[in-house]
Amino acid sequence: MIAEKMKPLVQNNSAIRAMFEEGRRLAGIYGAENVYDFSLGNPNVPAPKAIKTAIMDILNEEESTFVHGYMSNAGYEDVRAAIADELNERFQTAFHPENLIMTVGAASGLNIVLKTLLNPGDEVITFAPYFLEYNSYVRNYDGILTAIAPNTDTFQPDLKAFAQAIGEKTKAVIINSPNNPTGVVYSRETISHLGEILREKSREVGHAIVLISDEPYRELAYDGVFVPFVTKYYENTIICYSYSKSLSLPGERIGYVLIPDEVEDSKEVIQAAVIANRVSGSVNAPSLIQRVIRRCVHERANIEAYEKNRNLLYSSLVKFGFSCIKPEGAFYLFVKSPMADEKAFCELCKKHHVLVVPGSSFACAGYVRISYCVSYEQIERSLPAFEKIAGECGL
Amino acid sequence: MIAEKMKPLVQNNSAIRAMFEEGRRLAGIYGAENVYDFSLGNPNVPAPKAIKTAIMDILNEEESTFVHGYMSNAGYEDVRAAIADELNERFQTAFHPENLIMTVGAASGLNIVLKTLLNPGDEVITFAPYFLEYNSYVRNYDGILTAIAPNTDTFQPDLKAFAQAIGEKTKAVIINSPNNPTGVVYSRETISHLGEILREKSREVGHAIVLISDEPYRELAYDGVFVPFVTKYYENTIICYSYSKSLSLPGERIGYVLIPDEVEDSKEVIQAAVIANRVSGSVNAPSLIQRVIRRCVHERANIEAYEKNRNLLYSSLVKFGFSCIKPEGAFYLFVKSPMADEKAFCELCKKHHVLVVPGSSFACAGYVRISYCVSYEQIERSLPAFEKIAGECGL
Repeated sequence: MIAEKMKPLVQNNSAIRAMFEEGRRLAGIYGAENVYDFSLGNPNVPAPKAIKTAIMDILNEEESTFVHGYMSNAGYEDVRAAIADELNERFQTAFHPENLIMTVGAASGLNIVLKTLLNPGDEVITFAPYFLEYNSYVRNYDGILTAIAPNTDTFQPDLKAFAQAIGEKTKAVIINSPNNPTGVVYSRETISHLGEILREKSREVGHAIVLISDEPYRELAYDGVFVPFVTKYYENTIICYSYSKSLSLPGERIGYVLIPDEVEDSKEVIQAAVIANRVSGSVNAPSLIQRVIRRCVHERANIEAYEKNRNLLYSSLVKFGFSCIKPEGAFYLFVKSPMADEKAFCELCKKHHVLVVPGSSFACAGYVRISYCVSYEQIERSLPAFEKIAGECGL
Repeated sequence: MIAEKMKPLVQNNSAIRAMFEEGRRLAGIYGAENVYDFSLGNPNVPAPKAIKTAIMDILNEEESTFVHGYMSNAGYEDVRAAIADELNERFQTAFHPENLIMTVGAASGLNIVLKTLLNPGDEVITFAPYFLEYNSYVRNYDGILTAIAPNTDTFQPDLKAFAQAIGEKTKAVIINSPNNPTGVVYSRETISHLGEILREKSREVGHAIVLISDEPYRELAYDGVFVPFVTKYYENTIICYSYSKSLSLPGERIGYVLIPDEVEDSKEVIQAAVIANRVSGSVNAPSLIQRVIRRCVHERANIEAYEKNRNLLYSSLVKFGFSCIKPEGAFYLFVKSPMADEKAFCELCKKHHVLVVPGSSFACAGYVRISYCVSYEQIERSLPAFEKIAGECGL
């Protein structure tokens, strides 16, 4: 019955999601407190109190038919204006509401941008390790995703290999910083150099190559690390943002696509992206939560909690003998597997009720991803298990 | 910059949406009370009070990380169970939570089902007049939409022409009853006969032809008219439902796809549809509103208000000399244009600040759609304008 294109997707259903379901199964058997599920990026930090207050106030102050009704497919104009203002204030930019399209999270934003840009056979480049769903997103529009092999010393992108990989069919590049799964923040030097390469190569291939910046983790950065605002380094940049992590609202599916005026043919690109938002079936981002964003544009979830988690988990794992780059952002540790086959290592972890995701789920075998967007107590409780695992691996 | 496929969409941007923007523009000039906008299906009836109560209760009673967090891509299981129970009670069916996938409205539901089913070149049949966005939805997956010409006496589908149009490439059929734009409810005889034809033709072409029932207007039926529950008449039926109209929540983007066990390869179809929901970028339907549905599954917006609107508008238009089938459902009147070119008629209406949508926007020239999901007062205020328009048309 099902389409040919869906068959491989059904065969290789998301390993991360499978782990999520497995975590629920194990919790049902052993009790939630005895299962250490580090598999999913589902924030355990609650949404800021201001979210609840905003919802209550909106329901009391605004008309039901307005709050729950249709608006322009791009989203409420005052919501987009509030976001533009906030960005302009922080980054000394000059965005206006027309540059913004409210979307059903960043995943939907990425789909809309790819639908807007890609012709069948167009190539999109990204950097391993990366969120494997990018493959599905690109294939949705018959594009071809190519991943540049990782530099496992720093997990900054290998820009030499990148420059060589760009060809005439290259239409777009997807970056994700702070990065899932490594937690690495791409440096100013990286982004600046990336912009130069793209500018030069766009001239060379005779068309603009679009830099798509997938930014659900923008606000999750620690130790005062500098997170470059990408539109300032390359003119043909489109940002896909999500409030899933910054406001702990992943289930609400709320984010935006930002298409600056500097993007080539920006008016047409914006119009096409709004239409893509409509015809893909989203129609518009959920309305009540859009209204909430307007009132909470300066709010952040308690990001210090993640930093505290990172510090405990990172220092403990290193103490137990694991090897891992210290993440400066997001809420993931990308740990070198002490066993050659990291899937076997994941199985060993599972025996100790520790759920982690194999690096091959991010096109980077030999590593595992540990999501530390869990309670501090879960990390504390899990440490003896990690120590035992280290022992069994001879660390 | 933009993809070839997007170019015609940018060229022919939705006439209905353009009208919506035009209505806002005119309201800005003449005042909202002097513009009679009948162009969009944006319910003016507020959501039931129970929605506000449910949101407040959820925020007070349920955990933030649960209410706003990720859940299974198909949606919260208890929400799906509540919907299955409500359907089973009303329609004597035996659905279980696994038959349901919560979606970002019916538009997203249709996209997910088409993505699940269509191979490039597959044909989908629908019945004119119909919501032209179906074209975009089908083209998203490289399918071909064919529309059966309308029977303008009854606006029941022409099943003889339908049977002849089915061929080896026919994979699915989309119906929409109560219908946008005619307000007609497909009768038991129609649905029953449709099912027989599909059963016979499926055998003939050697594969199951899926009946996709797009049901945002299911609860909007008047005069006690019988609205057949389509899964009972044909085994390979998939329902795409939306709460946009029944709970007046169109901006919230909440609905479901229902895939009964009787559908061929139902387990695989359900799994593929859940994956399509994820990879299309929705990931899941908005979480808080899902939780609201669980508590409000028996609620309905004040549908009597639409019936009252229909009665006033229909009787007035007929009195002025317009010709129109009496709608039994939805909130639209499909009026015969008194001018040969119905677009010229729409322009004449606009001169009187009356906004209506040309029938050609539903593949049925010579008619206009009037949405009566507006205030009763707007209808009252607009009647002198309609009377003048009738006069200018020599009615």
